[in-house]
Amino acid sequence: MKKVYRVDLGDRAYDIHIEPGCLNQIGQALREAVPEAGRCLVVTNETIAPLYLDQVTASLEQTGWICFHCILPDGECFKTLDTWSKILDAMMDARLARNEPALALGGGVIGDMAGFAAACYRRGIPYVQIPTTLLAQVDSSVGGKTAVNHPHGKNMIGAFYQPRLVWIDPRVLKTLEPREVRAGLAEVIKYGAIWDRRFFDWLQDVMPRALALDEEVASQMILSSCRYKAEIVMADETERGQRALLNLGHTFGHAIEALTGYRRYLHGEAVGLGMRMAARLSEQKGFAPAGCEDAILRLLRAAGLPTEIPFFSFRDWMDAMGHDKKNIGTLVRFVLMHDIGHAFICEDVQANEIERLIASFHA
Amino acid sequence: MKKVYRVDLGDRAYDIHIEPGCLNQIGQALREAVPEAGRCLVVTNETIAPLYLDQVTASLEQTGWICFHCILPDGECFKTLDTWSKILDAMMDARLARNEPALALGGGVIGDMAGFAAACYRRGIPYVQIPTTLLAQVDSSVGGKTAVNHPHGKNMIGAFYQPRLVWIDPRVLKTLEPREVRAGLAEVIKYGAIWDRRFFDWLQDVMPRALALDEEVASQMILSSCRYKAEIVMADETERGQRALLNLGHTFGHAIEALTGYRRYLHGEAVGLGMRMAARLSEQKGFAPAGCEDAILRLLRAAGLPTEIPFFSFRDWMDAMGHDKKNIGTLVRFVLMHDIGHAFICEDVQANEIERLIASFHA
Repeated sequence: MKKVYRVDLGDRAYDIHIEPGCLNQIGQALREAVPEAGRCLVVTNETIAPLYLDQVTASLEQTGWICFHCILPDGECFKTLDTWSKILDAMMDARLARNEPALALGGGVIGDMAGFAAACYRRGIPYVQIPTTLLAQVDSSVGGKTAVNHPHGKNMIGAFYQPRLVWIDPRVLKTLEPREVRAGLAEVIKYGAIWDRRFFDWLQDVMPRALALDEEVASQMILSSCRYKAEIVMADETERGQRALLNLGHTFGHAIEALTGYRRYLHGEAVGLGMRMAARLSEQKGFAPAGCEDAILRLLRAAGLPTEIPFFSFRDWMDAMGHDKKNIGTLVRFVLMHDIGHAFICEDVQANEIERLIASFHA
Repeated sequence: MKKVYRVDLGDRAYDIHIEPGCLNQIGQALREAVPEAGRCLVVTNETIAPLYLDQVTASLEQTGWICFHCILPDGECFKTLDTWSKILDAMMDARLARNEPALALGGGVIGDMAGFAAACYRRGIPYVQIPTTLLAQVDSSVGGKTAVNHPHGKNMIGAFYQPRLVWIDPRVLKTLEPREVRAGLAEVIKYGAIWDRRFFDWLQDVMPRALALDEEVASQMILSSCRYKAEIVMADETERGQRALLNLGHTFGHAIEALTGYRRYLHGEAVGLGMRMAARLSEQKGFAPAGCEDAILRLLRAAGLPTEIPFFSFRDWMDAMGHDKKNIGTLVRFVLMHDIGHAFICEDVQANEIERLIASFHA
């Protein structure tokens, strides 16, 4: 059931390897990905360490690696320069050479921080993503965006830095909270909504098996998601144009997260709600045919994701979406849809259209 | 007397502009280098700010820039993650967009830190080097190496990140301590020793005018130095091979700095001593003809640089050069010379040869 997808970025090309149970084979894979290195640092968190660190370490040591660990506290609130500098300290303590890799074993927070540390330590050492959440497996581990948060903004400090290998074991998802699995599915749905109607329809069919983490369905779903993400990244590595399509649902979603203090919704849940809003706005502006929002709604429900848009005032919405007060008429860029599978970037959304949209959810 | 050299790194190409008095023209130059941006952040230190910040700000504001400042304490001891994060805070406070530049107005410490902050803020914004020391003008402002120090190692955390423009006004050197000018000249001499015998001989001829900061000689000397550095960087941007030639004199020089607690010698002074040692070692190993060390010595003296090798025990030397105790026989790579103007990388230097070398200076 092994699936391999090669991200073709010239001299920074790398493989995404997806295989149930492959966590036990990371040692040999690392040897092939980073020949000539002898030591490595595994960066993980306090939740993942008791579950999978022994297994990863055993595989590494069996293949001759000298293995160091850096175990960080778990949570987005620790995605800071301060925690990141602890990874650099661990790299210094391990005396990693410029060709010796770091491994990010965890979700998006660990991947983003360990990747950014790898980008900066000695001006760049190899790193490998071993994502353990569905969100990280289908999204953040691919694309080379690494970062930490600043008190005044998410992901404001970071680097574009590609991993040497992405090693995905769908079996590890079985220890994930079901709510986290559902939130990850929102990002999977997003790829279908942006890019591929057939994939979107396939998801509707297989959703019960996806929720049960059927290994065949999960592997296929992860592979397709990584492929869509990688295709966009290859076309636009440093996010100057088309990569913005990946933000479907994110303008509204980020606003919902911010307006609820990042406590009520998981990121994927908020993105699901944001996609519903983007679909309705696309219909209201006459870009998408009727039924576009309904299709999104039906799939979100099948995935057990929230679908009710919470109520906030128009002013709150506008503030949370970073609306510049000097620039009353036009808003920033939105990702809208011509149809399921056909997202596009729209620079022409007026404030009164947003007002009408949010009113329509609470009529 | 304007001189422009283009560093050809494909889509990261940039100009090095050298002209006495050009500090007053930075506003217009920045407008051409970074069109469409409206705001910028000038990063400088407490020594440089009273001398040149008003002048730079005036030029920027006259050409329509909205200009923010970040003034840091002066000195290598502040080249830390902590100071660097202050630059990021200033970028956040100024709300710089992804296309809005940072300017590094100062010596190597400011250039390295501001460049590294520009590399990481929003995963990379443009930056411009305005080096104010001779060392920065002939060395650190060119090549795209940015970094801060870690408590356990110099320049251990950083990025390869190219500036959008290097803007050099040799006239600012007149406010530099004469000892700093001489230390900068050591790096200029280094380029001749590595790469170009004619340039080396020309330096011997013009040294009195160089020390007097004659604008014609200074401009020519800076241009040539930047060109040598850029040629090596273009051939080896991320330092895998030939770029190591630039470390002529540095293995011994770093050891001398470390063994004297970074207090007795300026970096350039230590590099000058290191070049003398590398030249003698090259003669002793039969690579270079007799007279190679003497030529170095004569030019160092003309530049008013120290030439006496300080005394330390053999063990201190070896420890300071990072000699791995498990690896008794062979040392790390040295840059040696076949002759003035012909440096090469030598992987075959034995501990007993180092012992003989240092003994020969204190016989």
